[in-house]
Amino acid sequence: MLCRGVSASRVRGLSQLSKHLALPRISPRFIQSSSQASTNASRSRLIAVAASAGAVALAVSSVLILDNGPIKNDAPDPTPALNAVPVTTTPVDYVPTGLKTEVGLPPLGSVYDIVPGLQKDLPTRQKMEILLKYYQNEIVAAIEHADSSGRQFIRDEWSRGQNAGGGITRVFQDGQVFEKGGVNFSAIHGSLPPAAVQRMKANHKDLKVPESGALPFYACGLSLVIHPEHYLAPSVHMNYRYFETLNEDGTTQAWWFGGGQDLTPIYFDKQDAVHFHKLIKDVCDHHDASYYGRFKKWADEYFFIPFRGEARGIGGIFFDDLNEKGQEETFQFVADALSRFVPSYLPAVRRAYEPSTEPRPADHEGRHWQGIRRGRYTEFNLAVDRGTQFGLQTPGSRIESILMTLPKQASWEYNYHPKPGTLEAKTADVLKYPQEYV
Amino acid sequence: MLCRGVSASRVRGLSQLSKHLALPRISPRFIQSSSQASTNASRSRLIAVAASAGAVALAVSSVLILDNGPIKNDAPDPTPALNAVPVTTTPVDYVPTGLKTEVGLPPLGSVYDIVPGLQKDLPTRQKMEILLKYYQNEIVAAIEHADSSGRQFIRDEWSRGQNAGGGITRVFQDGQVFEKGGVNFSAIHGSLPPAAVQRMKANHKDLKVPESGALPFYACGLSLVIHPEHYLAPSVHMNYRYFETLNEDGTTQAWWFGGGQDLTPIYFDKQDAVHFHKLIKDVCDHHDASYYGRFKKWADEYFFIPFRGEARGIGGIFFDDLNEKGQEETFQFVADALSRFVPSYLPAVRRAYEPSTEPRPADHEGRHWQGIRRGRYTEFNLAVDRGTQFGLQTPGSRIESILMTLPKQASWEYNYHPKPGTLEAKTADVLKYPQEYV
Repeated sequence: MLCRGVSASRVRGLSQLSKHLALPRISPRFIQSSSQASTNASRSRLIAVAASAGAVALAVSSVLILDNGPIKNDAPDPTPALNAVPVTTTPVDYVPTGLKTEVGLPPLGSVYDIVPGLQKDLPTRQKMEILLKYYQNEIVAAIEHADSSGRQFIRDEWSRGQNAGGGITRVFQDGQVFEKGGVNFSAIHGSLPPAAVQRMKANHKDLKVPESGALPFYACGLSLVIHPEHYLAPSVHMNYRYFETLNEDGTTQAWWFGGGQDLTPIYFDKQDAVHFHKLIKDVCDHHDASYYGRFKKWADEYFFIPFRGEARGIGGIFFDDLNEKGQEETFQFVADALSRFVPSYLPAVRRAYEPSTEPRPADHEGRHWQGIRRGRYTEFNLAVDRGTQFGLQTPGSRIESILMTLPKQASWEYNYHPKPGTLEAKTADVLKYPQEYV
Repeated sequence: MLCRGVSASRVRGLSQLSKHLALPRISPRFIQSSSQASTNASRSRLIAVAASAGAVALAVSSVLILDNGPIKNDAPDPTPALNAVPVTTTPVDYVPTGLKTEVGLPPLGSVYDIVPGLQKDLPTRQKMEILLKYYQNEIVAAIEHADSSGRQFIRDEWSRGQNAGGGITRVFQDGQVFEKGGVNFSAIHGSLPPAAVQRMKANHKDLKVPESGALPFYACGLSLVIHPEHYLAPSVHMNYRYFETLNEDGTTQAWWFGGGQDLTPIYFDKQDAVHFHKLIKDVCDHHDASYYGRFKKWADEYFFIPFRGEARGIGGIFFDDLNEKGQEETFQFVADALSRFVPSYLPAVRRAYEPSTEPRPADHEGRHWQGIRRGRYTEFNLAVDRGTQFGLQTPGSRIESILMTLPKQASWEYNYHPKPGTLEAKTADVLKYPQEYV
């Protein structure tokens, strides 16, 4: 139903891969146990992993160089599922090809060397669009390769009508490693209605509003959510955006950047958390010694479900209205953050498939807890997240792009609390209060 | 995990059953296909139905008379699952014992004959509490018997602290026929904060508010949501409540009733819809010729997901601030509506297990569409429903009682639209615009 008709042109930009980030290539995990399960495989969760030494690790670089050469599609995995068995807590026979993600990262501040076509003297709007589209392609390519199934993102290009902008929605579903995800670019312009302008003036006292009360604006952003299949792999959210209000002649009046990224584990894993936060902190520290502390606190406060008294996940960074250091410097901060997104996240997914000496849940416990945790994610997105609510209440919004953030499956049980001492309870405890990881 | 330790005292009030409403007694539907499925049975959905002529139909009356005699628990069903097979579109071998729910209903206006201990000259608050607790017990008993598994509702009695009221939460989960449901009674009093009073004054101009700005109030209600297991059986919601503002001496200042009930099918079924609406309309017409038209329209407008442009279900009735006909008359209207709840709903559940000449979906299609439809239900409850949002935002609310309305499982797929001409598309079409059923 999804993706099969999509052209091979999506898989590109991967000719100069480093070996630093790799996910195991696994054979089709869903086996068919009955006619029922055959069409409802993700529900029946009978999962087969190719426990084969022939499993091919596909390398996904932390620095993906755009390749304009011939387009290559992945051939189907020739490795048969030698012994189709349910995933258990026993590690699969997988040989990692390296997790040293800190090694080989491009230097911070090197965006103009990384992104083709980007030039310092272009207007910031144009630079942001080039940057965001570049990383949309790179992240899409990294996820597709990490998924190892040959399944590709679908691509929906949409427009708000003449001269109002539009976007490119990329959505992935039902892969081997990734259950559902989206990486959406948009660049829109128009007039903010007076009510929105009034809300905005609370944070931006100097806005000059035309007599009509409506304010011309420009906004672009890249917004991402990924929900992996495995309960040991965390979900992730990322969003970076740039906003301008315009004078009547179309020139920039005010501008600011916003965004951030945060990790939502099903099971808390300290190594994943430290790695994710460390890469973000390095980016922040390179630009301002105060950024990480301020923006981590902002994320802890924002990604919080007040009626549950618990965080959505283990945070990361979140910021808005950022313009204190000038356009070029802030643009480079966002560019550096984007350059670290894939390497900050994919190792946590790969580790779900690797041997571990840490205690792990039984498979049925993992699946069950994954459903509950996704229920909480859904609660945050539908009942708490101001961005989602604003989108849902805005006439003409593209609802499917907004709600692509929801997991494929979520579940609720009355008054469920994990038993004390379990791995589930440990995660619930971590989510009660903000933690320090680096 | 649920219910097993619950005392047999829950099952009572069923000694004088009529035969008008019956669900098939089916043997355990979940068979264990693997160690994974054993603890995750509702996910694996391998369902066994006792396709046996010995299947016992348990009658559940539309008028359940409270029995103060010896408490009897149901013995386990002695009928073995002769051939444990997945549910298919082939009807099970089940002999219905009657669907003539209109026959044998108690006369409208007979609440004082039905509800033990209810007397006309009691204060309305007290009468409503007696009425609502009576139907809480009756509905709980009807659902438990219809479920036929022996599984019982859990009971959580809660208090808001000294002299502020409390409630009785009854929750059912993981039955054979019903996947999840709750029937919650509450009766609370206290002071409405000034902001809430101001909102209330919009509809009640004559409210006399003390100088403090806070307003003493009393409120009681019975609130219900049921999600059956079978994709051919609809979910249902019902809520009836009574509200008073008080003078400083505790006497009643203003009062009103509110509530309603609405049906949410996974697959639209006209017979279910007509039956549900007809019983409600009969109640309405008995009390005021304008009620059904007005309250049906209100339900169509309220149970609507604006950002989807579709109704949550096929509606029913919804009303608030109802006091135009006096306390006694409005109390009797609500009592009559409550007397019709079970007979308006359970036949639709039973029909899911009966032979039908209507086209039915393949099982995997049914399961899939059920997930999507429950996703929409979740969207309504978390992102649209004002009652839920008010509850989630109110400090000290009992979150688990509020969120027990959510289905056990919900799913989302990017940009999913049923194929034209399918049963799923037919349902989606019905939900686009309000329909007339009676």
